[in-house]
This record gives sequence, C-alpha cells and structure tokens, in this order.
Amino acid sequence: MRAEFDRLRVVLVATRNSLNIGAAARAMSNFGVAHLRVVDPYEPSYREARSAVGASQVLADTEEFDTVSDAVADCTLVIGTTAANRRELHQPIKRLELGARAIKQRLRHSNVAILFGSEKRGLSNDELSHCHWLMQIPTREEHRSMNLGQAVAVCLYELARDSKALSPKLEQEFASAGDAERIGALLIEVLRKSDYLKPPTTVSTAEKMRRTIRRLGLSPGDVRLGLGMLRQILWKLESQKQDQDVTAKEHKA
Amino acid sequence: MRAEFDRLRVVLVATRNSLNIGAAARAMSNFGVAHLRVVDPYEPSYREARSAVGASQVLADTEEFDTVSDAVADCTLVIGTTAANRRELHQPIKRLELGARAIKQRLRHSNVAILFGSEKRGLSNDELSHCHWLMQIPTREEHRSMNLGQAVAVCLYELARDSKALSPKLEQEFASAGDAERIGALLIEVLRKSDYLKPPTTVSTAEKMRRTIRRLGLSPGDVRLGLGMLRQILWKLESQKQDQDVTAKEHKA
Repeated sequence: MRAEFDRLRVVLVATRNSLNIGAAARAMSNFGVAHLRVVDPYEPSYREARSAVGASQVLADTEEFDTVSDAVADCTLVIGTTAANRRELHQPIKRLELGARAIKQRLRHSNVAILFGSEKRGLSNDELSHCHWLMQIPTREEHRSMNLGQAVAVCLYELARDSKALSPKLEQEFASAGDAERIGALLIEVLRKSDYLKPPTTVSTAEKMRRTIRRLGLSPGDVRLGLGMLRQILWKLESQKQDQDVTAKEHKA
Repeated sequence: MRAEFDRLRVVLVATRNSLNIGAAARAMSNFGVAHLRVVDPYEPSYREARSAVGASQVLADTEEFDTVSDAVADCTLVIGTTAANRRELHQPIKRLELGARAIKQRLRHSNVAILFGSEKRGLSNDELSHCHWLMQIPTREEHRSMNLGQAVAVCLYELARDSKALSPKLEQEFASAGDAERIGALLIEVLRKSDYLKPPTTVSTAEKMRRTIRRLGLSPGDVRLGLGMLRQILWKLESQKQDQDVTAKEHKA
C-alpha cells in the first residue's frame, strides 16, 4: 500500500497462541505491512499458524529469529509496546498517537521494528532494553492489557490512518433547490385536498414545509420517489372527489 | 473513562463465533465502552462467551435483541460498518477517521449505535437499511475484510484517540549543561592518559566531544553512571602509571 511500510517490521516475541500469530498476520495484510518476524515462538503453535488453511502471504513469508537482537539488527529505531504502568518502566514512553508520528518519520528513510511481547507477560526487561522508547495504546488504566492481535491491529491502523483522506465515495448527491420546491408545492396541494390544510394556506406554513424539506437532505432519487408518491395520492384524491360529486348529483337527480 | 461513551452501543449482528464476541467485549472494556448488544447471535456460541472464565463485566451486562430495529431503538444515529466496495452500497460511506468525528459529536447529547455484521457476510441489505450512513476502516482494497474483534478494537480506538494528549510520562529528564560539560572534561582527561589524545588537545577536539555528548541526550542517571566509570578508569590509569614509575625507578636503582 505504502512504500514506507516496506521498511516496517512487526516483531512478535515469545508468542504462545497460534491464533494470535494468525490474527497479527491478518491485520498486517489488511493494512499493507508485509514483514512479520517471530522470536522464540512456541513451536507447535507457530507451525500450526503457518500451516492454517488460507494462511496469508504475510504468514508464509514470516522470518524466525533466536534473539531480539538478531530480529532488529537492520532497524535504526526499535519500539516496544507495553501495557505496564509508568512507574514500572525505565524508558521513555509515548502514547500511540504521538509515537506513530515518530515512527512514520523514521520509515521515510530507514527500517523500524515494533515489538509485541508474549500474551501473559508482555516484553521482559531484557527484551525492552533493545528498545529506543516504548509505546502505549491509550486504554483504560483499570484494563490496560489488550489482546495481542487487537493491539497489532490498532497500532497498524494508527500508522495507516490519514485524517486528511476523503471518504471512498463523496457525500450523497443532493436534489436541486427547484426539485425540493416542486416536492414542497405538491405536498401542500395534497394536504389541502386532504383537508389537512385549510385554504388559504398561510405563508408561514409554506415556509415551515420548505425548511423541513431542506433539512431532509433529499437526493434526486428521493425526489423522484416522493413526487411519484404524491402525484398518485393527488390523483386518487381528485378521482374520488369526482366520484363523490357524481354520486351527489345522481342523488339530487 | 468518558461520559459520552456511556451513550455508545456496540451492536453485534448475527455473530457466529464466541471468541469474537469475547474479543469485542474485551476491546470495549479496554476503551471504556460498557454497552454491548447482540442481535440474533448463534446461541451456543453466545452462551459459551458469557460463561467463559474471566468474562468481563461488559459481557455479563450484554443485552440480547431479536431484531436490529429493537437494538437501535434508543439511538438517534445508527452506523453500519462495512468492508464492501462502494459500488455494492447504496448509502453514504465515510472513512473511519471522518466517521468517528461525526459519532463523537452526536455522543455529546444522544445515543449512537455502531453495527458489526456476521463474520462471513457482514451486514445484510436489510440490516444496512437501519443505518444513517456506513463506515469503512481504511484497509487495503485487496484485503478489505478485518477480523471482527480487531475491527471493533480499531473503531473504538479511533473514538478514544486524542491527538492532543500528552504521553503518560513526559520525556525523560535531561542532564544539565554543567553535568554534560563535566563528563566531557573527564572523558578528555581519560583519553589523554590513555594516549588516545596527544596533548595539547586542540580546541576542535573538545568541541567535537561536547557536540557528541549533547546529542546523546543523557539523563542525570546516565551522567552519574558515566562519571563513576570514567573516574574509576582514570584512577586505574593513574595508579598503574605510578606503579610503572616506581618499577622504572627500582630498575634504575
């Protein structure tokens, strides 16, 4: 997706559960990050994840390392993710929103590794000592620790997000003022014929109707649908009225 | 965590896998969102999730509904999440970054529901028809569809993120210029005593040393450690020199 993401390495350290390795790989594929590295994974679980039906390209290309040191050797910036509280940590810690900015900047010209620790204990002090700084997802203090696959997804989303991006489809098309006016006029006519509005219709009623219709933000399709329904109602009201008039005449006759 | 999040309802529609219900509940707890609603869940799976060991308060408080209509009845804004491409959809669609802004605004005064469809098919056209607009996580076009638990986590993170927030611990403490100067002077002395630098030491060497030390961004602790090491090295160099001088004298004698 982005050239810089080719310089990003997601490093899973001592992961126990194969579902989490698979989930991390899926999130990476979703956000266009190709390089997954695993350090000392729980072997049966790792093999299971790689051989799973529909395992992605990310999983097939995963590299395995014996030590954190080897896994981050080609990176100029190494970030550890942590759910621990600040008093337990000896390294600078950045919230994800700020950390991601620094990571994106570095990715423009060199490799960056983001480390995720084991499900139970996170990264050990030894593993953390390889990191330049630590990053924390802004979860609640009472429930800091995220599921591993979800933590990977959230970190990669923050790197991929773009607050200036347009939505995939621009906002819906809107009906012209003329169309909105026609539908308003027809509605007033129907309401008069139904004796909901008594003639003469006051100016304020027409204004209220116009404001309401504007506020609905109708599309051209909505207008076509609305005009069709109103014309049919109007036709029915008028034809019933004629029938009534005829019946009334016959009675008199 | 935030008062507005009490107005948010996460609605899982026709979820099949209990692990995904549990994962959604965990992400909600991480980000401080309490109200989980399920519509037509796969029953055995749903019961299993609720009875899981360590099931969170979110899961215990989950409400079950028969229809989407009932599940969103108290909300003034209903958002459907989708991985589909724009041509398949008939409703306005916003990227998560933009959609979240509108959701946060509405949460200030009324309830909002975010719908997540089943793992296999997402939300059906009937389910989508309850939505005011649709929201899409900016995943790769070649691999749009996210894991359900990860999608919930990413959406809630975007709502919880705060680009103006400070990191939990302000940047590391830095050593004073005086301390940095002391360590530089001591290092120059050690390098002279080691014959790495030949006296007289040029001004440019001292300048280079000072720039390097500044760039390291040492903390007060680093300075204490560094001064201790350098003093010991200096002491050793000087005592060995004395021994040498004594030995040399004895030889002469």
